[in-house]
Amino acid sequence: MFESAELGRRVSKEAFEKQEAKLRSALLDAQYDLLKQRKFPVVVLIAGVDGAGKGETVNLLNEWMDPRHIETLAFGLPTDVEREMPPMWRFWMNLPPRGRIGILFGHWYTAPILLRAYGDIGDRELDGHLSEITRFEKMLVDEGTLLLKFWFHLSKKDQKKRLKKLASDKDTAWRVTRTDWKHFKLYDKFRNISERSLRETSQPFAPWTIVEGLDHHYCSLTVGRTLLDALRRRIKAPEPATTSLPVLPAVASPRGKRVIDTVDLTQKVSDKGYEKQLEKLQGRLNLMLRDPDYRRLSAVLVFEGCDAAGKGGTIRRVTQALDARQYRIVPIAAPSDEERAHPYLWRFWRKLGRRGTFTIFDRSWYGRVLVERVEGFCRPEDWQRAYTEINDFEEQLTRNRIVVIKFWLQISKDEQLRRFKEREATEFKRFKITEEDWRNREKWDAYQDAVNDMVERTSTEIAPWHLVSSQDKRYGRLQVLRVVTETLERALKKAARGRE
Amino acid sequence: MFESAELGRRVSKEAFEKQEAKLRSALLDAQYDLLKQRKFPVVVLIAGVDGAGKGETVNLLNEWMDPRHIETLAFGLPTDVEREMPPMWRFWMNLPPRGRIGILFGHWYTAPILLRAYGDIGDRELDGHLSEITRFEKMLVDEGTLLLKFWFHLSKKDQKKRLKKLASDKDTAWRVTRTDWKHFKLYDKFRNISERSLRETSQPFAPWTIVEGLDHHYCSLTVGRTLLDALRRRIKAPEPATTSLPVLPAVASPRGKRVIDTVDLTQKVSDKGYEKQLEKLQGRLNLMLRDPDYRRLSAVLVFEGCDAAGKGGTIRRVTQALDARQYRIVPIAAPSDEERAHPYLWRFWRKLGRRGTFTIFDRSWYGRVLVERVEGFCRPEDWQRAYTEINDFEEQLTRNRIVVIKFWLQISKDEQLRRFKEREATEFKRFKITEEDWRNREKWDAYQDAVNDMVERTSTEIAPWHLVSSQDKRYGRLQVLRVVTETLERALKKAARGRE
Repeated sequence: MFESAELGRRVSKEAFEKQEAKLRSALLDAQYDLLKQRKFPVVVLIAGVDGAGKGETVNLLNEWMDPRHIETLAFGLPTDVEREMPPMWRFWMNLPPRGRIGILFGHWYTAPILLRAYGDIGDRELDGHLSEITRFEKMLVDEGTLLLKFWFHLSKKDQKKRLKKLASDKDTAWRVTRTDWKHFKLYDKFRNISERSLRETSQPFAPWTIVEGLDHHYCSLTVGRTLLDALRRRIKAPEPATTSLPVLPAVASPRGKRVIDTVDLTQKVSDKGYEKQLEKLQGRLNLMLRDPDYRRLSAVLVFEGCDAAGKGGTIRRVTQALDARQYRIVPIAAPSDEERAHPYLWRFWRKLGRRGTFTIFDRSWYGRVLVERVEGFCRPEDWQRAYTEINDFEEQLTRNRIVVIKFWLQISKDEQLRRFKEREATEFKRFKITEEDWRNREKWDAYQDAVNDMVERTSTEIAPWHLVSSQDKRYGRLQVLRVVTETLERALKKAARGRE
Repeated sequence: MFESAELGRRVSKEAFEKQEAKLRSALLDAQYDLLKQRKFPVVVLIAGVDGAGKGETVNLLNEWMDPRHIETLAFGLPTDVEREMPPMWRFWMNLPPRGRIGILFGHWYTAPILLRAYGDIGDRELDGHLSEITRFEKMLVDEGTLLLKFWFHLSKKDQKKRLKKLASDKDTAWRVTRTDWKHFKLYDKFRNISERSLRETSQPFAPWTIVEGLDHHYCSLTVGRTLLDALRRRIKAPEPATTSLPVLPAVASPRGKRVIDTVDLTQKVSDKGYEKQLEKLQGRLNLMLRDPDYRRLSAVLVFEGCDAAGKGGTIRRVTQALDARQYRIVPIAAPSDEERAHPYLWRFWRKLGRRGTFTIFDRSWYGRVLVERVEGFCRPEDWQRAYTEINDFEEQLTRNRIVVIKFWLQISKDEQLRRFKEREATEFKRFKITEEDWRNREKWDAYQDAVNDMVERTSTEIAPWHLVSSQDKRYGRLQVLRVVTETLERALKKAARGRE
């Protein structure tokens, strides 16, 4: 794979200067078009062999273009907050918004390649990481990001020469660290692992560009031209036509036999039983969150449900059990303009809590496959790929000891009507009912179909959906508390085992 | 001061339950009005003696109102990023946006009071902290925040009783820590310091409400009613009429003798001298940022100037000297909707870099006293108070070893015209000139007056303004680089002394 990057490509100083001036002004033009359009963000990954001139090229890119609209990010050791979060969190938090260019040194490839080179993981595990990366990159691209990946290569001989040269000059000696020499000794290993990584993650939507790192002029021109070409194509490209994939239900079945219809809405609880059980469950939950082992975990609760199903009241029964300092409720409404300038899941990533916290999402990332699908707020292909993206997201959370508990609160269409009318009649509940609610109600069946598909496609072994009848509100509340306490109990036991 | 909070106030369970229902629904109503209006944020500080029922009251507030729109924040030990930032940074980053309620446990009073109680600082230093707090709170209120401060009090005897009671019950024993007992031994000291702190920081715009902590019912009703009353008044209040303070120039002087007119625009540099000096200065700057002592500092550069004065080109000459991984340029344009929902300076606080970084603001917080003043984008009293707020902000930065370097790039009115015309004539510069630029030019004198006042009021010994002629662009660039290198050199020397 790297053979064609060991051909000794060079560009003379003269040729470079001649081409540089033209490239520079063309890049600047393209950058301003990008900025004016604000239609997509650009992410440039800079990876490869130490000493192959990555820094020089990036500095030159910043010189050629307007550095005010470029963010160059080097990811060093993670901060203490970053260490508590899923590994991808720090990258999510640093994604550039539409119209800007992010140049990333140190990125999602760094950790897996190092782990493999040091022998901490095997090939199979490396492949697991790489497949996760591929899915992440696919999401970025699907969400509109222009993603470019450059791998700077040097032959073993040339790297040795380069490191020695840098080390021998007092002005550059600081750049060659012990780690660089340690890595050089592992050159062949790194080469193999890198080949594997590039091969596995070179996809049509995000191919790698290998850059021969022997000559700075050549490197910079190559990267600059590749970037320019990609920018120009993308800026001129028409809005992608919708691919109109067929909308298939998750489970082929005759209408009316949906999983959502299996929720038994007749379940009830008596007045007396309610108060007693509520107190008992709340007490258990309270104790669990004070368990020292809980500091090694955190919880993310997702509440979705029919309009007027009683999400607010149910959430309140959960938070009553908790200390206000420990939980946080994130109500999901229309995204802010900063949120709109980032990939869809960004606004949920940024609301994740640290270890020991308890975060409740009142509506959530499932908006994409519910309201956005039914109301046509996004293209069919956008919500159709969301199932996979959401599953990947939740897998990252659970792998990081974040307990994900998802609830769908169900009521019947008649009960909804009764509650709507009650709300309209009751002074202090009137703010809870809007024309939009009535409009949504007309699409009851479309919503129920969407819920059904959602459950089928995202009820996973790591984060199953709990379909709860809220026809009797009190029954629903107890059921939710029961699921929360039982799930956390299991998680705490597991955490205790992990500690031992 | 606390005498009237030791009168043994109690509310019977019956009376409480009767009043609770009414208060609860009134609070909920008020909260929804707040949310609908989205005109101001609410910050509730909860402070006072341990064991006085702060937690219970806050939990009840969350129960009474809709917890989805409340953020309850407990500030524990700072994270590693927070430790690198000015102490107020973590509070800035957690201010609620308009329409939401933030309840803060552990806040800007915690550290100064503890430092004083442990004897690490004296009364004078405490007063310094308190005066800083008062200014911060004044800013919050001026920026529209509804700020309520509650101090929970218990007599020495009652605190002892309370702690003992908590400690003796196995369900609550965990709440009484060693620190609580240690603090109890310092009761009299804490009482004196608290009295002093409350006295110094009780201002008409943010008075303290002392709450007798003997009885939970009494506490909760008192806090709930105070909050309700404040919310209601504020929601009903008309938009404050502009107070139309007289706009006085910073220095009384006949027109035309402004400090900005003293900039010598005839200064030039020769072609040959330029290249040589540029390279030399850039080399020096590059070395300085690689100095290990720089990791204990960081720099914030502010670039303001006439339109077409050459800010972009000048900034580029600075960044050419640096590694792209180390600096970040923050271009200031219109605020995002999240930024608009917070106090003015929030959007700048959130862009501060960590230790060892170099942040360049291309336009800055001075927009308030320049464009916003001249164009009438804010009320006169808003930009008039901004001078003090900005000075306070910059003092916090410099105290935290952030080197603040501010540049105003000046050109003559004729030179501006020449550059505007040149831009219009040059294909690739055309994007740089808009109708707005021509409109602003008509207000040349008003802008120059604003610049003059800005310099007079915010050129401080800790963060002086550097007025640089950019009439000859190359002269301006060298001058900027000279100031940056000299200022950083001094800061590095100081840092080296601090290290020894």
